[in-house]
Amino acid sequence: MKENQTGTPAESASRRKFLSLGAALGGALTACTESQEVVEEGPKRLGRAPDEYGERSPYEKAERLGSASKNPETGSARSPLQDSQGIITPSSLHFERHHAGVPDIDPAEHRLMIHGMVERPLVLTMDELKTLPSLSRVHFVECAGNSRSEWTDKKGATAQHSHGMASCSEWTGVLLSVLLDEVGVKPEATWLIAEGADACKMVRSLPLDKCRDDVIVAYGQNGEAIRPEQGYPLRLLVPGFEGNINVKWVRRLMLSDQPAMARDETSKYTDLLADGKARQFSFPMEAKSVITRPSGRQKLAGAGFHEITGLAWSGRGTIEGVEVSTDNGATWQDAELQEPRHRIAFTRFRLPWTWDGSETVILSRATDDTGYIQPTEEALIAVRGQNSDYHNNCIKAWKIGADGSVTNV
Amino acid sequence: MKENQTGTPAESASRRKFLSLGAALGGALTACTESQEVVEEGPKRLGRAPDEYGERSPYEKAERLGSASKNPETGSARSPLQDSQGIITPSSLHFERHHAGVPDIDPAEHRLMIHGMVERPLVLTMDELKTLPSLSRVHFVECAGNSRSEWTDKKGATAQHSHGMASCSEWTGVLLSVLLDEVGVKPEATWLIAEGADACKMVRSLPLDKCRDDVIVAYGQNGEAIRPEQGYPLRLLVPGFEGNINVKWVRRLMLSDQPAMARDETSKYTDLLADGKARQFSFPMEAKSVITRPSGRQKLAGAGFHEITGLAWSGRGTIEGVEVSTDNGATWQDAELQEPRHRIAFTRFRLPWTWDGSETVILSRATDDTGYIQPTEEALIAVRGQNSDYHNNCIKAWKIGADGSVTNV
Repeated sequence: MKENQTGTPAESASRRKFLSLGAALGGALTACTESQEVVEEGPKRLGRAPDEYGERSPYEKAERLGSASKNPETGSARSPLQDSQGIITPSSLHFERHHAGVPDIDPAEHRLMIHGMVERPLVLTMDELKTLPSLSRVHFVECAGNSRSEWTDKKGATAQHSHGMASCSEWTGVLLSVLLDEVGVKPEATWLIAEGADACKMVRSLPLDKCRDDVIVAYGQNGEAIRPEQGYPLRLLVPGFEGNINVKWVRRLMLSDQPAMARDETSKYTDLLADGKARQFSFPMEAKSVITRPSGRQKLAGAGFHEITGLAWSGRGTIEGVEVSTDNGATWQDAELQEPRHRIAFTRFRLPWTWDGSETVILSRATDDTGYIQPTEEALIAVRGQNSDYHNNCIKAWKIGADGSVTNV
Repeated sequence: MKENQTGTPAESASRRKFLSLGAALGGALTACTESQEVVEEGPKRLGRAPDEYGERSPYEKAERLGSASKNPETGSARSPLQDSQGIITPSSLHFERHHAGVPDIDPAEHRLMIHGMVERPLVLTMDELKTLPSLSRVHFVECAGNSRSEWTDKKGATAQHSHGMASCSEWTGVLLSVLLDEVGVKPEATWLIAEGADACKMVRSLPLDKCRDDVIVAYGQNGEAIRPEQGYPLRLLVPGFEGNINVKWVRRLMLSDQPAMARDETSKYTDLLADGKARQFSFPMEAKSVITRPSGRQKLAGAGFHEITGLAWSGRGTIEGVEVSTDNGATWQDAELQEPRHRIAFTRFRLPWTWDGSETVILSRATDDTGYIQPTEEALIAVRGQNSDYHNNCIKAWKIGADGSVTNV
């Protein structure tokens, strides 16, 4: 293979490592003997003409997975992470979680009101908002209840079941701090209470420091208007905080000197600790990762070369490293991280792997730029006790059977 | 506004500049007097439940714009850049250009053959390709014919007409260099000839150096399978090179010691110079930019604060700066660039602007990391002559009328 190496540009350590596995890989690929057969195949007639708004191929079947519910409007639908690529979640496959269904809102009629402890209350139309200084940032959103089944014996069969209540988009809008400067926040204000325009009038309270930092009043998602399920025409995008506080269809922001103590920050989204106290206002989603391929219900075709890939994220900042174990935690290797890495966003990791065909367990473990390392389930239970439901970010294991089948353990 | 400034985090220079325009902005916004009116509005009943694969809001109307043609299968459709946000183009709105329509390909039947001057010819299935080391990168694709109407007196009315044959996605696939190492390229090979599976069997020739560098055999786009119009299930993504060479529905890669001299690199996609010679194999798309808002057929609501925003890109590397003029080129200001900036990708620029209400012309001018500065039309004609049709990257002007209307000039 000498001539192949000549002229090859500088490559990353892990890619070089893959190339050293050339024999294993080559064996898995098909040598071409009847080239004419392939060349003569393919369409002989004109295909279809361009269209106004494209659709995916009818051969593609990835879809969101809803929870069985007598009241589907208060339900959820998970993103098929096992089919994910890169770091962007297609808007059509972004996870959903609604408390009163997706409202139908005419953007020409929608208003955002900012009032309460402010000098100059404001009501903004969508057109007025879009005139203001804008920005776009890539951020994940994760439901506080993501991976709740991982606490139990009824673990979800796939990465979609276990981790699919998290997605990542390029969001566009106006920094909330710009609007707060315009209305003039009074010194006594310490909280912002956000209300959605859905039928349940979703209400959540945010500390003012976060509002002055990186919160976006978002009207755009992945290059077009935000999708109805994500809050069309306007969503409060609160980077890294639990999904529920990213209030969708947002229409009202009230400055206050105390939180609202609303239903979804008292009876829900709190964690009951071992001593009977409830952990409340635990906003940031901690560092977490999941291997998306190979993952539950997928099957390795056989021993030999396979790429291990997955997603990592942290509500506190940037993913600094992901370690992968292919021997049930006995040893760990650094995975390659897709660059550039965004703050508070999905980070794609990849590791070349040659499977020897024997049963094993694979794991991933993320570290963020605060130095926090994704914990084991045991370590998480030691802190949180046995009553927790939300906020499960423990290390995820997948078992590879000798037949190549992958299952949740 | 003293209390507003207190606690405001560090902000970029341009954002501070905006805030100093607070009076102008505040005047444009509506003070809230009847808050109850807004609070009491909104849906009173349950919305719809989650669904499997989401759609955009029915209120959103942005769409691709096709060229009138007796043979639409050989036509094109432009991306609505005037509605763009951030740097990602929604896959449903990515521009299209076909020479024989969009073929319907079953991925289970699709093969990629690599042969010619190689040691070990290969035929790969899609499943085999997806087992190999993958990567994702954000890249623009631009048709060589983008902005061709800007050479003429019949300039397109909108940014979609003038610049909509360019789009940007996160692409996922396998580096072509990985496959070349596997097949073992013979020393005498200097070109790679790529063929698509469409009815016209699109063929283009690439220099081998580029193939060993950053070319991706791409099966993913924006987090899911590549769209049919972009080459489903497989496209050769050739970063920065004219769109046509990014062969869609790619099924064959032949290593050779000479280019194919195919139809689309001889009779098309060449530039006839003033001396009668044709410029051929002019692969990289040079640095370019366009203001997308305000742009043709949009209308400013009135004097006062407006954000100027647009897109810049270079086929040779990273955008290092975009200057904007709001006085027909007399003076220029540095726009803010959206971070992180990707190599060979759309870069979003933004500049706060207070319009005084008088007629003017606005322009943008991009510089890339090779030091190349986007030329004026005069400078481009001085080099290229009057016969050029493809590869127009000159500075784009929009005229703002005293009534706020925006027109192409």
